Amino acid sequence: MAEVNKSSLDPLSALCKRRGFIFHSSEIYGGMPGFWDYGPLGCELKRNVKDAWWQFTVRSREDVAGLDATIIMHPKIWKASGHLDTFSDPMTMCKDCKKLMRSDQIADILADQKKKPQPKITGSDFFCPYCGGELTEPKPFNLMFKTVVGPIDDPQNVAYLRPETAQAIFAQFLNVTATSRMAVPYGIAQMGKSFRNEVTPRNYTFRSREFEQMELEFFIRPDEAVELQYGKVVTLADNPDLNGPVQDDWGWEVWHKYWVEQRKKFLAAVGLPPSTFVEYWQKPDELAHYARACVDIEYDFPFGRQELEGIAARSDFDLTQHQLHSKVPQTVFDDPLKQACKKLSDAEKDAFIAKTRTEWIARREKTLSAKAGKPVVLDEADSAALAANAEAFCRNLFEGKYVPHVIEPSAGVDRLMLALLCEAYEEEKLTDEKGKEDVRTVLHFSPKVAPIKVAIFPLIKKDPDQDRIAREIFNKLRKKVNCQWDVSGAIGRRYRRQDEAGTPWCITVDAQTVQDGTFTVRERDSMRQTRMNYGEFLAMMYEALEF
Amino acid sequence: MAEVNKSSLDPLSALCKRRGFIFHSSEIYGGMPGFWDYGPLGCELKRNVKDAWWQFTVRSREDVAGLDATIIMHPKIWKASGHLDTFSDPMTMCKDCKKLMRSDQIADILADQKKKPQPKITGSDFFCPYCGGELTEPKPFNLMFKTVVGPIDDPQNVAYLRPETAQAIFAQFLNVTATSRMAVPYGIAQMGKSFRNEVTPRNYTFRSREFEQMELEFFIRPDEAVELQYGKVVTLADNPDLNGPVQDDWGWEVWHKYWVEQRKKFLAAVGLPPSTFVEYWQKPDELAHYARACVDIEYDFPFGRQELEGIAARSDFDLTQHQLHSKVPQTVFDDPLKQACKKLSDAEKDAFIAKTRTEWIARREKTLSAKAGKPVVLDEADSAALAANAEAFCRNLFEGKYVPHVIEPSAGVDRLMLALLCEAYEEEKLTDEKGKEDVRTVLHFSPKVAPIKVAIFPLIKKDPDQDRIAREIFNKLRKKVNCQWDVSGAIGRRYRRQDEAGTPWCITVDAQTVQDGTFTVRERDSMRQTRMNYGEFLAMMYEALEF
Repeated sequence: MAEVNKSSLDPLSALCKRRGFIFHSSEIYGGMPGFWDYGPLGCELKRNVKDAWWQFTVRSREDVAGLDATIIMHPKIWKASGHLDTFSDPMTMCKDCKKLMRSDQIADILADQKKKPQPKITGSDFFCPYCGGELTEPKPFNLMFKTVVGPIDDPQNVAYLRPETAQAIFAQFLNVTATSRMAVPYGIAQMGKSFRNEVTPRNYTFRSREFEQMELEFFIRPDEAVELQYGKVVTLADNPDLNGPVQDDWGWEVWHKYWVEQRKKFLAAVGLPPSTFVEYWQKPDELAHYARACVDIEYDFPFGRQELEGIAARSDFDLTQHQLHSKVPQTVFDDPLKQACKKLSDAEKDAFIAKTRTEWIARREKTLSAKAGKPVVLDEADSAALAANAEAFCRNLFEGKYVPHVIEPSAGVDRLMLALLCEAYEEEKLTDEKGKEDVRTVLHFSPKVAPIKVAIFPLIKKDPDQDRIAREIFNKLRKKVNCQWDVSGAIGRRYRRQDEAGTPWCITVDAQTVQDGTFTVRERDSMRQTRMNYGEFLAMMYEALEF
Repeated sequence: MAEVNKSSLDPLSALCKRRGFIFHSSEIYGGMPGFWDYGPLGCELKRNVKDAWWQFTVRSREDVAGLDATIIMHPKIWKASGHLDTFSDPMTMCKDCKKLMRSDQIADILADQKKKPQPKITGSDFFCPYCGGELTEPKPFNLMFKTVVGPIDDPQNVAYLRPETAQAIFAQFLNVTATSRMAVPYGIAQMGKSFRNEVTPRNYTFRSREFEQMELEFFIRPDEAVELQYGKVVTLADNPDLNGPVQDDWGWEVWHKYWVEQRKKFLAAVGLPPSTFVEYWQKPDELAHYARACVDIEYDFPFGRQELEGIAARSDFDLTQHQLHSKVPQTVFDDPLKQACKKLSDAEKDAFIAKTRTEWIARREKTLSAKAGKPVVLDEADSAALAANAEAFCRNLFEGKYVPHVIEPSAGVDRLMLALLCEAYEEEKLTDEKGKEDVRTVLHFSPKVAPIKVAIFPLIKKDPDQDRIAREIFNKLRKKVNCQWDVSGAIGRRYRRQDEAGTPWCITVDAQTVQDGTFTVRERDSMRQTRMNYGEFLAMMYEALEF
């Protein structure tokens, strides 16, 4: 593949507007910052990306069930998840010019203006970068969009547009478990719109206020349950086969790595092989307090390296929070575990409790030490509380009961689409036989996500036989995949039009087709033309489209 | 088909909960009135219904483009559309007990309580049906959910969750027209969530506060443009063929009827043949002032006859409103029309203007008379204003310019799903050879929308050959359609489990399969079992799934 112009988003965003991939929302009214609409080609690309995720994550697996929950949910969900208290950016206002800004971006604004920060006198660390006025203290601004449900505008009727799809999965965990005939380890997947009232939406569609997510919560047994039932917990040190079938004796570490690999397979299938992104394993001091591990998949966008998706091992934090706030136990009952524990003597149980206590305290101290950057030892009270929790946890396990842990692969549809567009975009320099130079703009989409799969042309549109046969092919094919019919302009111009839309195959019906039924198939990337009949084309196309 | 129990929703909603079709939103927190989640089977059903609509309305046609716009749009859109001023229900509050109610439902509440309405004294027509207290005057309550975009909670930053998907289509009409390489007549389709803050959400998922729509705005030439270009406007009186290709000389009346027929074809394809619904043509006095015609497709739900979808001829009202409020002309340029008009003499043009004026005034008077229930004649000023508009409209037409008219088929995903569930649900009485009676619960879904297409069972799960071959079939099939694997319980129980989920086909692998590769295919509705090989099954299945 020739060199891709990635120095700026401008040529790509111009193409996206011109060819109907992406428009500003409400453009005729001056637009809405942070809101973007997908046009005819954009919405087909989006449908394909989402369908691919659903096929890969849900339908092709036996251990994932789907969910489609509402955007507005009970506000207590956001109390339990922590979003109500902590999902905020710090905001500062200038007392003079009344401008609002994100407190953590003032230094950047000053740097952009090449101004030296003034020493702090009061309120903020800085003076106003716009007028030099005094700034207010940073105040947290919650990023959830608020609304009121029902006719009474009262604080008790306030609700929020979900800032992520994940929480609905936790809130419906019991219902799905009861009805899906699946048992842990198993996952629940959801796709859908989420909303974040970003103070500064930016970078084209990357950081929008309204966006779409594809999230999987894959529930697993706590390692202690695996150990009790299988005698040992398989870790990465055991070098497990992550490409074969999943195994019951995997610990959280293996499950997490398994899902990282699964996500990489998915990205490769839709057009982002591992060479195109960076796999970043968060360091212990970067992890959320409940997280065991988190991998960010980062892509080099023209505006810098940014997170495309994340795969986090979140322990039992989420379900435990919902158990606490809803007062509804989020435990599952695992009969084989209970049967396994029945065989243990009291002494063996006590030993297991003692070991678990020690491990929990050691893990907590390790986490705190990483955050503090120096060794931390729990004091006696904290240590005793944790030990009591560990014992209660073990006693539940012996009865076959636990709150599942979870691995969360969480992807943004719009971010992935933007990465696919950036990766696919090329202004390719061509030289014909006579040495004449030309540039063609092409979107090298994987056929799996390309908005139009096949374009069909009669070579000579006024030839009734060519027109009729081309129509027949078009009518048969479009029952199967998204097709386009084009008769306007020279054949070369029709190819270029499809190159810009990212269409992988163009079928041209010519005089020979009328004789023997074969047609030329022009492949987008190589521009090679091959003669095929309908059956051969169909087989080739299906192979390229199947996961 | 045996008799269907439609007296109540209870057995159906119990099945929907038990098998994972529909859950209360946020159930562990006590639920949210008017919000419903779709579980594993429900979300597959929903995906299939939406995919079917998209395939039927967009991908299988050459004259419809897709759009995927944001839920939060510029608030001026709702001013232009009229939602800000008139999309409201009248609300009344009791001054004593402070209860809120819909003013237009008080008589119903009193009737339910078998109380006689008290004569009006002040405020409302009635006293409070709950405490007998005095009621406030009815006050309009806007049904749009409000929110604030950006960090400043200021009236100028108020925005709304869209109450319909249609307006985004009008707002992006110019962008889609410029990029889709389509020209009027053509349509723009969109599916997605909409929100209405219903005072009294009710009837299960029928009237929800958060719901999903599938809307098409099909833009057509004004009849006057058709007449100028083709010399005549085809009307229903000409008995046009609505099953053949669409024609350029169709007037709005034919286009409207065409789309009614198309929608009926779609409903039949997904499982609602015309015998299952009522086609209600609104009477002239029921139509919105700008509407030329509107057909409601109504279904007999257990809670009464209710609108499933509507097909409206909305004239150029919507685009004209957006032109007025955005100050951006929403006209298209139609060169063939301009060329046709060039051939007209000035006298012919004047005659056309005169005729158009007369027609417009007559139409307006007819509309007003229908509303008033008695003949209405426009006064001189109104008549002159309308005549001036008609002339300006004609002069634009002569230049090839007009604001397109629109036909709007608008369907609700959730309502259609509920109708499909009601229609599919049956408690079927069976009698076996020995005369023993039994009841099976079955969902007679069309294969096109059934959540699971095929269930695959080894007859004897401990037989390694049967298990292996069944697995091979399962693994091949699930790359193509949603499949389920089931080995638990007797074969009869497995069939019943699939009947309740609406799975059209069950494949059972037995000893003979090991010998000759054929398996039994059990058809859900007839319960007939047929022996087939894989190729035969695939051909039968694909035929049943294709539109």
